[in-house]
Parts: sequence; C-alpha cells; structure tokens
Amino acid sequence: MNACDLALPNITALKPYQPGKPIAELERELGIKNIIKLASNENPLGPSEAVLAAIATATKDVTRYPDGNGFSLKAAIADKYQLDHHQITLGNGSNDVLELLARTFVSAQDEVIFSQYAFAVYPLVTQAIGAKSVIAGAKDYGHDLDAMQRLVTGKTKLIFIANPNNPTGTHLSSEALLTFLDQTPENIIVVLDEAYVEYTTQTSNTVDWLRRYPNLVITRTFSKAYGLAALRVGYSLSSPAVADVVNRIRQPFNVNSIALAAATAALGDHDYIAQTKQANELGMQQFELGFQALGLDFIPSKGNFICVGVKTKAETVFHSLLQQGVITRPVGNYGLPQHLRISIGHESENQRCLDALTMALELKHD
Amino acid sequence: MNACDLALPNITALKPYQPGKPIAELERELGIKNIIKLASNENPLGPSEAVLAAIATATKDVTRYPDGNGFSLKAAIADKYQLDHHQITLGNGSNDVLELLARTFVSAQDEVIFSQYAFAVYPLVTQAIGAKSVIAGAKDYGHDLDAMQRLVTGKTKLIFIANPNNPTGTHLSSEALLTFLDQTPENIIVVLDEAYVEYTTQTSNTVDWLRRYPNLVITRTFSKAYGLAALRVGYSLSSPAVADVVNRIRQPFNVNSIALAAATAALGDHDYIAQTKQANELGMQQFELGFQALGLDFIPSKGNFICVGVKTKAETVFHSLLQQGVITRPVGNYGLPQHLRISIGHESENQRCLDALTMALELKHD
Repeated sequence: MNACDLALPNITALKPYQPGKPIAELERELGIKNIIKLASNENPLGPSEAVLAAIATATKDVTRYPDGNGFSLKAAIADKYQLDHHQITLGNGSNDVLELLARTFVSAQDEVIFSQYAFAVYPLVTQAIGAKSVIAGAKDYGHDLDAMQRLVTGKTKLIFIANPNNPTGTHLSSEALLTFLDQTPENIIVVLDEAYVEYTTQTSNTVDWLRRYPNLVITRTFSKAYGLAALRVGYSLSSPAVADVVNRIRQPFNVNSIALAAATAALGDHDYIAQTKQANELGMQQFELGFQALGLDFIPSKGNFICVGVKTKAETVFHSLLQQGVITRPVGNYGLPQHLRISIGHESENQRCLDALTMALELKHD
Repeated sequence: MNACDLALPNITALKPYQPGKPIAELERELGIKNIIKLASNENPLGPSEAVLAAIATATKDVTRYPDGNGFSLKAAIADKYQLDHHQITLGNGSNDVLELLARTFVSAQDEVIFSQYAFAVYPLVTQAIGAKSVIAGAKDYGHDLDAMQRLVTGKTKLIFIANPNNPTGTHLSSEALLTFLDQTPENIIVVLDEAYVEYTTQTSNTVDWLRRYPNLVITRTFSKAYGLAALRVGYSLSSPAVADVVNRIRQPFNVNSIALAAATAALGDHDYIAQTKQANELGMQQFELGFQALGLDFIPSKGNFICVGVKTKAETVFHSLLQQGVITRPVGNYGLPQHLRISIGHESENQRCLDALTMALELKHD
C-alpha cells in the first residue's frame, strides 16, 4: 500500500505553505540566542493588558469546550461594524475562513481568480479542492483589476483580492474596487481579504459595501494589528445567506476559548491599535530611509512589512541574515526571487536588520 | 443572487453539528445561575497546575505565530509512544484530523463506512465532501464489525471505528479489531478513533499495530481525559506516508500556541490522568447505581459518559433538566430518541443530575 497512491491527486500535488522560521527552530539549528524575527508580520508591541487579563480569566475553563457559536466575540464584532451577528463567520485565523469559502462555493470543475504575487493561501485552498487557479499578471507588483476582470469566465466561482496585498504591501483605491465589484457578475463570490486593513489610512468603510454587493465577502484577522497571531482568530463579514452556508461546513469548535476571549478584549482596545499604527509608521519610515541609504529599491507598502529588492538571490541574503540572528522572509515562492519581505519591528530590531543587511550585501561583494 | 444556489449542493445539504449547550447560553436564556453541565464529556477536575503554568508562559508570546510544525508537542508524543515524529499529524481537536483524513483520501465518488450510533462528525465530514456514507447497523448499541466488513465495496476508501464509541460508550476487544484489520484490504484507510481510550482498562497497545497495518490511523484527543477541550488539540498516529499526505492539506497554523504548550505539559502529567480515571470510575458507579434505583436501563460505558434510557421522549426530559439547571445531551440526532447521554461529573454534580432526573420523570408521571 502506498499512501500517495491512495490520496487524491490534488492533495498529493500540494506543496504546503512555508511559514516564517520560528525563533526556537533557529536557536536549535544554530545554537545561538538573541534572535529577532521580522518574518511573519507579527505585532512587535506584545500583548496588551486587556488581552492578558482576558486570557487569564478564560484559562480557568480550559476543561470546557469553547462556545461553538462564539456569542460574545460575534456580538462585539457586530456592534463594532453595526452588522447583524448572522453576517459573521469565525475562523481559526483568516486562513480557515478563506479555506471554508473556497470549499463552500468552488468545485473541482470551477475556476478561482487571484493576482500574481498574492497571498500563498489562495492557490493552496484552490489546489486542495482540485479547482483551477487563474492568475492575473500584476501591475507595479499590485493587483491589476482590469486584467483580473478579463479572466472571468462562466466557470469562475470565486475571486480573491488582498488589500493591502501580502507580500507586496500594494493597495487598491476604493474607487477601483467599487468599479470592479460593479463589473463582476453577482454569481461570483468576491473575497476582499483585509488582513492588513488596520494599518491603512483609507477612509471609506468597505463594510458598508456589503449592503450593495451580496456576493462580497470581507475577511479580517486578529493576527496582525490586534497582536494575536498565536491564537488563530479571523472572521468574515458577508450577507447572512453566505454566512449561513459557510457556517454549515465550519468545524463546530474551530476557534478555541482563549482565542475567543482574547479577541473580544482586543477588539475594544482602541489605544493598542493606535499605538500599533503609530509604531508601524515610524518603523516603515526607518526602513524606507535605511533602504534608500543602501541604494536598495523597495515596494511602497501599506502593511506592517516591506518588500525590498536586494539585487541578487534573496535566498542567499536570507541565509546570511539568519547567521546574524535575523529572520526575514525570502519571497521566491511568490515569484520574487530578488526580494526579501521584512516585517516592521521595534526600532532597535529594525536597525539591527538594516545593519545585518548591510553586512550581508557587503559580504557578498567581497 | 442566492447564496444557497451558489454553494455546492453537498454543502447546502449539511446540517451542522449541534454542540452541548454552553452554560453561559443557558444562563442568558433562563436568567438562572448555579448551572451544571454534563453534556460534552468534559473533564470535571479542572486544569492541572502543570497546564496552568504552561499557558501562563505561552501567553507572553501571543503576538507570535504558533510553531506550524508543533515541534515540542510532536517530540513529546513521539517519545511517549516510541514513534517517529513523522508519524504524527496535529489537529485543531481530533475533529480537524478526522476531517483532514476524509479530505485527503475520499472523493465525491467514494464511500465511507461507519456504524449506526457512531460519532456525528463521521457523516458530517463525509457529506461535506459529497461522498456516500455507508452505515452498518449496530449490535447491542455498539459496532458490528462483521456487518461493517460486509459493506466494503470497490468504492470504499475509509472506515471510521470509534473505540470506545461516543455516544454509546460501547467497546470492542483488541481481538475483534485485529481480525477486522486483517480482513480489510490495505487500500482502505481504517481510522480508529480513540478519543476516550484513556478511560478504558484495555491492556493491548494499539499504537504497536501501526507497524503491521500501514492503512491504520489512530486518532486521539486532549479534550477528554487530558482536560483541554477549550484548547482544541487532537492528533493522529499513522505511517509516515499517511502523515505526509495529510499534512499537505493541514492549515499551517491549525493548532494555536497556547494549545501546543498546554498539551505538551498535559501529556507528561501522569498523576492528572490517574486522578481522572479514578474519579470517573467512582462517578460511573454512582450513575449506574442511581439508574438502577430509578429502574432505568443504561448502556454499559467505557467512556466518561453514560447513555441512559428514559422510557419516554428524551428531548422532553432534557428540557425539564434544563429548567432545573442541569445540562445533559439528548441523542435523538444519533437515532436514540429515548436516551440521554450524561457526562460523568463531580460527585455532587452527578447526585444533582440524578435528583433532577428523578424529579423530571416523576413530573412526567403526574
């Protein structure tokens, strides 16, 4: 018996997502300490007091199953966005929600459209179903919505749009998105992935668009600005009808109790988000100025990370940085073999990364 | 646009799993306090000191992504069972692992065999794929392995066996299981769901069987005896080849950091498991004697719960118990409309449940 022969061909063809290297893993490999990780777009501020208190309370009940309906968190989200709780689907990170959406609406005979350089989970969830990934070429490293629209066929069931996009940090205007939504047939689900929306300064509230576009689904996460990457909480906002069908396939306890409690607390912690944005803006400037000083081009970013061109094989530079105890993310798997994606960290971490990069690139020139 | 028309027909046909009623939900509905829940087979002992300490440590890093490979937990599991870590697949509860196994090996054209009265997640994950559920009639409320074997066809891809079974608590001998495994073609994945194995006194180590049966997959959970239902950690043990393909479809961060840390601590806490088993045996005796005194038949159980026949519509009795602040689980959805499944709680909770049951059944006789 060969398990690969028994498994479905679309599963054996999968190449799993490569996460950012955990600090503990690099410590084991190199036997060094004092490692910094700027590889997974994590919030450098650490958990807020409100989150720590919520976790401590929830910990008392770890022998109990989570609330499968996520009553308190959904109520908090509904209140924040002035939506009905029936419009919310909770996920084990937004990865879970993205996968549930694909599994709900897309069959092996269907097509899913997304952009070149878009989030790696889109092709993965499409491939896991055995559906066809239809990839639109990028424009200036960002989504080319016209190109995406031209790829729509009778088989298109779902379109993923990341705004801001990961790993490039590019951003689409509300006007461009509204034009796209107006042009897209109502029988195609449009998933607007706003994992990094809290870092932008966009003024229009995309949640208001749900009333006009019943095929629009907005996904958001607590892993980035809300600082809860460890806990895996994401959600979608949609019409109640879409949420109803997606919730039928959702695992009943997909979000754990501590995650539910922490996310509910985080959602009300406006100061934390304000501090997060401010620190991110300063860190972004620090990197932009640092890259300019090094003569390196970067892709202007609206996220909490920045893609920098290193003019050589980024995988080599990545390894050189690892040796210096700095974890970044090479994005060759995104078709950007000469770019590194660097998350915005603390000022001292950003400086250490810039110094290590200087060293790495000079070493290369030896 | 109608979302139900857009969704895949196998998804819209899903009736989601009905979890046990959370205490907070009943509090909101009835406006009462002092509610006890014996509905979800949770460990009544509460979290151990080791688990609380592990959670406190892990909480410091909630802004960081989990280790997607679960290095420490896999190492602890591998050490406990003397297996290679490549034989382990971690899940967001064993629900996640059961779903991943089905999605890896079963297509819409295939068949999945399981028993009448078996765990509700088996038909759900089968239906979500659009595959055919083939249900073998039970024998004395338990699995009839001969009947299951007779249902094997060329389309059978996977067989679920729960031992002990939930919700009935029935148990299969090692000899019966080994005969079944010997008779089952190697190209059919046999999933042996041992969510409640820690409560049994079985002496044979099923993990040893993995060497002889490359198509065998054993699933286990931290939600029951290990007391971590809130945190969602389950796992499968299998051949490395099976684990390899299943891990390709696994969401990269499906188990959260606090769950990984708590489970690693719980696995080494042998005293907690010993106390859990002892308390469960005493509570089981308490319920058995109580039911006998009330003249009620029950299904002898090897789990941490017991199914009692209430000689009338169990849904009515369930509601009467709810009014008295006691949450149990009616199992009409399992085809047992006159049974209640009751989890073994603290001695005082068990007594309160028996008293409430006496009241409920007397009230009915008025």
